[in-house]
Amino acid sequence: MSLVQALCLNCTLKRSPEESNTQSLAAVVMDALAGEGVDTETIRLVDHTIEPGVVSEGVTDSDEWPAIRERIVAAEILVVATPTWLGQISSVAKRALERMDAFLSETRDDDETPIAYSRVAGVVVTGNEDGAHHCISEISGGLIDIGYTVPGQAWTYWNKGPGPGDEEWLTTKERDWSIKTGQAAASNLLAVARALTAHPIPAPPG
Amino acid sequence: MSLVQALCLNCTLKRSPEESNTQSLAAVVMDALAGEGVDTETIRLVDHTIEPGVVSEGVTDSDEWPAIRERIVAAEILVVATPTWLGQISSVAKRALERMDAFLSETRDDDETPIAYSRVAGVVVTGNEDGAHHCISEISGGLIDIGYTVPGQAWTYWNKGPGPGDEEWLTTKERDWSIKTGQAAASNLLAVARALTAHPIPAPPG
Amino acid sequence: MSLVQALCLNCTLKRSPEESNTQSLAAVVMDALAGEGVDTETIRLVDHTIEPGVVSEGVTDSDEWPAIRERIVAAEILVVATPTWLGQISSVAKRALERMDAFLSETRDDDETPIAYSRVAGVVVTGNEDGAHHCISEISGGLIDIGYTVPGQAWTYWNKGPGPGDEEWLTTKERDWSIKTGQAAASNLLAVARALTAHPIPAPPG
Amino acid sequence: MSLVQALCLNCTLKRSPEESNTQSLAAVVMDALAGEGVDTETIRLVDHTIEPGVVSEGVTDSDEWPAIRERIVAAEILVVATPTWLGQISSVAKRALERMDAFLSETRDDDETPIAYSRVAGVVVTGNEDGAHHCISEISGGLIDIGYTVPGQAWTYWNKGPGPGDEEWLTTKERDWSIKTGQAAASNLLAVARALTAHPIPAPPG
Repeated sequence: MSLVQALCLNCTLKRSPEESNTQSLAAVVMDALAGEGVDTETIRLVDHTIEPGVVSEGVTDSDEWPAIRERIVAAEILVVATPTWLGQISSVAKRALERMDAFLSETRDDDETPIAYSRVAGVVVTGNEDGAHHCISEISGGLIDIGYTVPGQAWTYWNKGPGPGDEEWLTTKERDWSIKTGQAAASNLLAVARALTAHPIPAPPG
Repeated sequence: MSLVQALCLNCTLKRSPEESNTQSLAAVVMDALAGEGVDTETIRLVDHTIEPGVVSEGVTDSDEWPAIRERIVAAEILVVATPTWLGQISSVAKRALERMDAFLSETRDDDETPIAYSRVAGVVVTGNEDGAHHCISEISGGLIDIGYTVPGQAWTYWNKGPGPGDEEWLTTKERDWSIKTGQAAASNLLAVARALTAHPIPAPPG
Repeated sequence: MSLVQALCLNCTLKRSPEESNTQSLAAVVMDALAGEGVDTETIRLVDHTIEPGVVSEGVTDSDEWPAIRERIVAAEILVVATPTWLGQISSVAKRALERMDAFLSETRDDDETPIAYSRVAGVVVTGNEDGAHHCISEISGGLIDIGYTVPGQAWTYWNKGPGPGDEEWLTTKERDWSIKTGQAAASNLLAVARALTAHPIPAPPG
Repeated sequence: MSLVQALCLNCTLKRSPEESNTQSLAAVVMDALAGEGVDTETIRLVDHTIEPGVVSEGVTDSDEWPAIRERIVAAEILVVATPTWLGQISSVAKRALERMDAFLSETRDDDETPIAYSRVAGVVVTGNEDGAHHCISEISGGLIDIGYTVPGQAWTYWNKGPGPGDEEWLTTKERDWSIKTGQAAASNLLAVARALTAHPIPAPPG
């Protein structure tokens, strides 16, 4: 039985090596998957050049999307992790979804099955302020549109509650619920990924 | 092997026997499921008294939610079909989601598995005007929150395009794409329902 | 100079006389308006029968919408206050917006000006959990669609932060930011209402 | 009386000199404003380097945001024009909103008034497919959050209706409603901008 691959797109606005709250909470999900024998990888998208566009091929010579897309297509499990700004997903997350719009017309080499069918996706959200549920709906909605299956409760989040303040995921003491929920997300992602590996979604009729 | 059950909640604002555009497009999905041997049922919610609230039990003597909830819980496949008003889901769809908020703390009798786990859900949207993608994201987001799995491309929609006009789903001649997409939605819902029946999502860890 | 009228639609799911968190936070805004000499009124919608539909006239004999609509149309300032369920607005708020869809084709008696022009609207959100920013966007988006003007920062909210727990607006000790933000919302609503009373938005060209 | 300034941020993904549907529909609004004596300017953001981040100052040496931000701050009227991908706003629009998050803590030099107070904003959306209402709510919600006032019906949009096809704004024959609605948006933006110039929103209390 081939190894299950899981890929996390960390959509923080902070370039390496700056510490990323989003990376840290996403690691809860990815570590739980690794603990179940899944082969995991995380890409911090902001460290790479990803041009605006809705195509899979490179838009410019420096466009790194084609190589990142290869990793996405290879992974049975995709985790999109985003910070929250103005209650919405980051522009980095939006950029990745936008490029994945091309999946709408891409099928597997061997048949007419859309490229994202039988792949599963989950969402991780961190924020200083409120917005996580909406980020989860937006990312899930976009990924369902192009063919990903989103398992029940395949998400976790943390934010500080209303108003300004310095507290972040990396400094808070209130971590238990977000960690437990992230571990459940990993369990649900893996269960559905395995179910769909055993019983793949066929090409649509007609 | 027991029969797969599929339930459609038609969230039109129009009471029976008035013709419902939403019912008609939802029937494309339900008929395709029935054609595959699925036991299908559709409830037009506006014909029933459903009180505001977030509990499973009846809120008043006339509250019909408990009986409707029984049908929801029995179905492996749930289809939420809504019209679009102001670019958003109907208040009838919102009312149903709100009552289903109670699922967050409900588990199956025999173990700690949340009641919506291994159930799949899809979305059908009709509208005079634009708004379908958002309705799909809102309903999918709400159902993922409480534990439903949303298969890739488990939706279809129709609307007229920008601006006012009398054209509706029941009178348009541009039906082919919405019908084909609805049949694909049925295929994807059934494939994932069967995969999760064979390999159910276990209770979350911890 | 005639008195400015402000109306709050409290869209809690709880019937009177049960205490409403949403009512309590909305009162911060309404009390600040009253303190500036505005004539304020709050309607708890769930105490009234409001039928599904998108028309201004009564749908059934018991439909109380026409009387409520009169109060809405008379008010220069509208505040929609909603609890958060599944990260979204309540079905009671959705019902009110849905009935207000009729405003799209209603003009003032004396000219072609849409009925909501030069009226301003704000939003108050309470919740056990995350979702306020999205509720503000949904309600603002719906009201802008039908012609209301939404002043900058004409909102306030409170929620508990991530995960379960008993804390509510009425029991929390962390109230300062939500109160101060609500008082700013009142100030902004009144400033724009007065500006638009002095300089009304004319009927659209053509 | 000083000239009113209006700035359009064209958030298309297409670099100059490629034709932009979004630019063309936005021009309806901007031309109508120019016809009323407003000083108008349009920036195609994708032609400029705008780094990810939530600060007003330049993030890198090549970051052109500070100069663009100067134009935004100088304009009484802001129009955000976006294409629709996956039913959502473009990553270019999201990037601009994200940088404008810094406005939350910026005030005018002469007092404590938030920098976006008494500024008005509108939205233009084009798309091959459905999603405009949601794009309007997301952009409006983000801008209201930071202090912009959004006038009633300060938007226009066009999309093709459901399903695939080659038709775009630049090739369609069904333009009348979107043009008329765009001209109304210009009228409403200018009316509220003038009202708020005459009666500015004061700094919030406290």
